[in-house]
Amino acid sequence: MIIARVIGNVWATRKEESLRGLKFLVVQPVAMRYKESGEVFLAEWGDTLVVGDKIGAGEEEIVMIAAGSSARQSLADTHIPVDAMVVGIIDKETFGAESGEVS
Amino acid sequence: MIIARVIGNVWATRKEESLRGLKFLVVQPVAMRYKESGEVFLAEWGDTLVVGDKIGAGEEEIVMIAAGSSARQSLADTHIPVDAMVVGIIDKETFGAESGEVS
Amino acid sequence: MIIARVIGNVWATRKEESLRGLKFLVVQPVAMRYKESGEVFLAEWGDTLVVGDKIGAGEEEIVMIAAGSSARQSLADTHIPVDAMVVGIIDKETFGAESGEVS
Amino acid sequence: MIIARVIGNVWATRKEESLRGLKFLVVQPVAMRYKESGEVFLAEWGDTLVVGDKIGAGEEEIVMIAAGSSARQSLADTHIPVDAMVVGIIDKETFGAESGEVS
Amino acid sequence: MIIARVIGNVWATRKEESLRGLKFLVVQPVAMRYKESGEVFLAEWGDTLVVGDKIGAGEEEIVMIAAGSSARQSLADTHIPVDAMVVGIIDKETFGAESGEVS
Repeated sequence: MIIARVIGNVWATRKEESLRGLKFLVVQPVAMRYKESGEVFLAEWGDTLVVGDKIGAGEEEIVMIAAGSSARQSLADTHIPVDAMVVGIIDKETFGAESGEVS
Repeated sequence: MIIARVIGNVWATRKEESLRGLKFLVVQPVAMRYKESGEVFLAEWGDTLVVGDKIGAGEEEIVMIAAGSSARQSLADTHIPVDAMVVGIIDKETFGAESGEVS
Repeated sequence: MIIARVIGNVWATRKEESLRGLKFLVVQPVAMRYKESGEVFLAEWGDTLVVGDKIGAGEEEIVMIAAGSSARQSLADTHIPVDAMVVGIIDKETFGAESGEVS
Repeated sequence: MIIARVIGNVWATRKEESLRGLKFLVVQPVAMRYKESGEVFLAEWGDTLVVGDKIGAGEEEIVMIAAGSSARQSLADTHIPVDAMVVGIIDKETFGAESGEVS
Repeated sequence: MIIARVIGNVWATRKEESLRGLKFLVVQPVAMRYKESGEVFLAEWGDTLVVGDKIGAGEEEIVMIAAGSSARQSLADTHIPVDAMVVGIIDKETFGAESGEVS
C-alpha cells in the first residue's frame, strides 16, 4: 500500500451515480525514509492522485491507500467503480517523536 | 484514481464484439500541483491513454478514471474487456477560482 | 488502456495447457501526441510487451490492449492465465488524414 | 512478486474496522543483482511501501510480497481492504554464502 | 505480459502454508528490440522479480509471466497468494536464427 499526504478536495458534479455521497481527496504520495541517525522523514514522490475517503482524513494527514479491487472491499457495495480508497490514517508516532517533518 | 484531460476520440472498426457502442477517448494524465500561494495548476505527466466513456466528457474536460477491474464495475455487463473508464468529470471549482490554467 | 504497435510474433512450445491455440504478439507501446498544428503522431514509450490476440492484428497495426483481469474477459474461458489481450485495432482515421507517421 | 527489506512498523489508530489486528510494516523494495563473479547482492529501488504481515517478519529480513487481489488470498477474510501482504521470508542462503551484503 | 530471463532460485522456509511445494525463481525482465537490420535482441529493463514456476524453466531461459489475478489462474487452487507465475517458455526461434544474443 502506498501512503500519501492529503492536500485537498475534489468536486465532480457529473459522475457515476454509484459514486454519489463518496468524498474524494487529492493526495500526494510520500515515502518514509530513514536518516543515518534513525530519524524518519517523509519524501514526496510521483504525482498527485484522487482517492475516495470514508474515514474522514483531514488536510496534511498521512493516509494508507488500498488500490485496485482491494479498494472496493472497504465499501458496502463492492461494485462501485473506484480504484483507490483511504483505509487508515497513520499515527504521528510512526514517524518518531522528534521527526515527522516533511522534506 | 488518476485524473486526465480529454484530448480526442478513438475509432476502432475491428474490435471485441462486446465493446461495440462504447465510446473511447484519448486522454492525457495530469496531476494537481499547488503553488506556494495556494493556487492549483495542472501538470501533464506520463503518456496518453485510451479510456472508455459513458458519461459524455468533452474535449479539454478533466476526468477521473477508474482502472483495472474497478473500471468494469461502471458497466452494466462487468465482463466487457476494458481496463479504464471515465467515472466522473471534475468541476472547475476544484482547481480554484483564479486557477485551472494548464502548465 | 494502452495502445501499441504490433512488431512480431512469439512462439512458446512449452506453456500452460490452457494457452494452446492462443496467438501471442510482441507489441511496442505508443502514445498519441498532438502537434501545435493539431496533427497527431505516435511516439514510442516503455518496453515491448507480449499480448494475446484473437482479433487477427497484423504487423504495424496499432492495437488497444486490455490488461489484468479485464484481459481475461475477452476469452471464452476467463480462467486462462493471460494478463494482456488485444481488444481492438485502431482505425488509421483516428490519427488524422495527413498523419499517422511514427516518430 | 517484489521482494523488500523490512525497515519499521506502522501505527494507525483510525482505520477500517476490518484492518484491526493486522500488523503493518514499512518495507524498502530491493532487487537481487549478480556480480560478474556470480555473487549476489541486494540493491534498493523505488520508494518505501506499507504491507500487511501475518508471518512475523523482523527488521532487516527480506520478504516476498504479494500485491493486489493476490494479497487478500493470504487472509481468512478475503474482503479485507489491503493490497500488499508479506507471504514469505527469504532464506539467507538464497543470496549465497559469502554475499547477502546490502549495497 | 512481460518476458524475463531466469537467473536463479529463491528459498523461503517461513512462508504462507499454501505456497509450500511451489518453486520460486528470480527473473530479470527483458524486452525484445529490433535492429534496423530486422535482427532481434533482448535488452534488460527494470529490476529483478520473484515469480512462481510450475513449468520447469531453467536458468537463462526466457519466460512469459502472467501477473496479478491472472497468475493465480494457472494454479489448481486460485486462492494461493502469488501475483506472478511463469506461463510459458519462449522458443529461441522467436528471436531469429542469428540473434538471441543478450545486450
